[in-house]
Amino acid sequence: MKISGVPYRTIWPLESGAVRVIDQSRLPFELVTLDLTTLEDAAHAIKTMVVRGAPLIGATAAYGLALALRTDASDRRIEEATKILGATRPTAVNLAWALARVRSAIAQLAPAERFEAAFREAGNICEADVEQCRSIGAHGLELIRQVAKSPTRRINVLTHCNAGWLACVDWGTALAPVYMAHNAGIPVHVWVDETRPRNQGAALTAYELGAHGVPHTVIVDNLGGLLMQRGEVDCVIVGSDRTTACGDVCNKIGTYLKALAAKDNNVPFYAALPVSTLDWNLEHGRDIEIEQRSAAEVTEVTGRTGAGDITSVRVVPAGSAALNLAFDVTPARLVTGIITERGVCPASREGLLGLYPERRGA
Amino acid sequence: MKISGVPYRTIWPLESGAVRVIDQSRLPFELVTLDLTTLEDAAHAIKTMVVRGAPLIGATAAYGLALALRTDASDRRIEEATKILGATRPTAVNLAWALARVRSAIAQLAPAERFEAAFREAGNICEADVEQCRSIGAHGLELIRQVAKSPTRRINVLTHCNAGWLACVDWGTALAPVYMAHNAGIPVHVWVDETRPRNQGAALTAYELGAHGVPHTVIVDNLGGLLMQRGEVDCVIVGSDRTTACGDVCNKIGTYLKALAAKDNNVPFYAALPVSTLDWNLEHGRDIEIEQRSAAEVTEVTGRTGAGDITSVRVVPAGSAALNLAFDVTPARLVTGIITERGVCPASREGLLGLYPERRGA
Repeated sequence: MKISGVPYRTIWPLESGAVRVIDQSRLPFELVTLDLTTLEDAAHAIKTMVVRGAPLIGATAAYGLALALRTDASDRRIEEATKILGATRPTAVNLAWALARVRSAIAQLAPAERFEAAFREAGNICEADVEQCRSIGAHGLELIRQVAKSPTRRINVLTHCNAGWLACVDWGTALAPVYMAHNAGIPVHVWVDETRPRNQGAALTAYELGAHGVPHTVIVDNLGGLLMQRGEVDCVIVGSDRTTACGDVCNKIGTYLKALAAKDNNVPFYAALPVSTLDWNLEHGRDIEIEQRSAAEVTEVTGRTGAGDITSVRVVPAGSAALNLAFDVTPARLVTGIITERGVCPASREGLLGLYPERRGA
Repeated sequence: MKISGVPYRTIWPLESGAVRVIDQSRLPFELVTLDLTTLEDAAHAIKTMVVRGAPLIGATAAYGLALALRTDASDRRIEEATKILGATRPTAVNLAWALARVRSAIAQLAPAERFEAAFREAGNICEADVEQCRSIGAHGLELIRQVAKSPTRRINVLTHCNAGWLACVDWGTALAPVYMAHNAGIPVHVWVDETRPRNQGAALTAYELGAHGVPHTVIVDNLGGLLMQRGEVDCVIVGSDRTTACGDVCNKIGTYLKALAAKDNNVPFYAALPVSTLDWNLEHGRDIEIEQRSAAEVTEVTGRTGAGDITSVRVVPAGSAALNLAFDVTPARLVTGIITERGVCPASREGLLGLYPERRGA
């Protein structure tokens, strides 16, 4: 997508053999890029959330493994680099998957050929992610066209958290349909949930939509229900961190509340996700273990002062406890449809198997 | 209620004839009191939100009118003071009501008797508010006893915004049952929604519960749904700014989302409110005009830095719009019951008329 008219990706290779990424820890206040030239650079970028979002973490790890092999492409070095990168964000499924994919691409090669092949494979991973997101966008675009009752009326999409191109290599998942609609001249406007506690909506979703020129309005997480009651939301599109075989959608905390409001007001509620997010081995969302994160994310808020400094302020009395659970599960009964790279289907076992028939009897 | 073991009210008269209030604009970080000795002091305290909450605004205005008459109790002075105080928070219904009540108490008196009578009437207004909240608490306590399946099991109450004693003179509305339960030795614990955008939950509710010694945990507004799915909420109790004759509850933005989650998980959802909040002339909540406030409350968050300064930080990119609507309406069908100073009733016309039979045919 574009930033002030210039096409960007979140990660791209340089002629020099280094890899450049957008430093997302500085967004939305500063657009700064960072060059990764070593394994350590890549590991540090993942660990410190310079890059975040499952697909982007996978792509960065793949390039990190390639960079590790530039001066030493021995088997021992491959093991070492895999271990270091794998430990940066241990719960990120895409990370392990991307490392395995690069390793399998170079396993049979002589050490002298490995760096170049690994670098190429990391590039392939990025291209595949872009293609997958583009397909999600194309299928989602059709849904937006259906929701649009006239070509000139503003279409209001509500989204929660950041499932945009900043979480991927390009396009995003939940936001890919929005970008496609905007690029096609459909007057789309996005209600951006700020998404406490980490504010990824206010910081990242608002930033990337604004940078590409998509009209949007930031709202507190409390507002979406009223907007739906008033008919000011045409559809909700969110991403998903994990989706069960029955269509239960695990996503950022608060998604469930928006799904309830959507149901109560007959607003279509979609989850947009790549196949890698589908957990065919898990039946019910209630069995997903929910990550508990630091209470400090609740008790403190980070932003920019009038003087321009980025700082954190405490918003809770010193003696008060806080609880921070990162995800919730929206039951399939509240999900109008699931958008994947293969199409749109009902949130049910049969619906998903319709898109992925090869999983039948698996 | 108590602060570190010492009984407090939000407003109380001094021997000197002045009135002392807690400066709520400094909470939760500092407990500072302020003495109001003139009409101007009282008007300023209301306008700058040193005092807030409908009942407390009314009580402060009543004392403000009394203070205005100390040196000049002429009819002209009464008019002038009423005008100045009435303009401080023009939408606060209790403010006009309290001023009218003081005026009617002194209308027939000679100027020399007016100051003392007005001061006494302001005190009566405070005592009546305390009694009303105490009654709400006693009725709500019975509900909490019903929810408590055993005397030793922790009872989890979820609340949104601040409808505690800091909004009133003492006890509060939604929190009165909680204080009564705590004082009665029932092991009650409160999930405190931070309540973006103004964070009254994180700042005021957490402060007053902590100061009185009631166990509580601050959560982001997104978390309540998951907690209810997990069975970790026994009941929800909120306040109300306005309740229609059919039982639709207008309250701080986000209340509706919690009510939906409560319904979806069979968690009882109560609104606690004094009779003054009932709008017998309004049938449906959808006809209530919702106050739109400054976008800056969404784009900026105020808190305390590590160095101890109170400051605001911006959390939204410079180019992004924000929308700030302050209230939403929870339809009566989602409300298990309404708790008033007269008892508990279903959220319906018949239910409310059962508590207020004098309104039948009115």
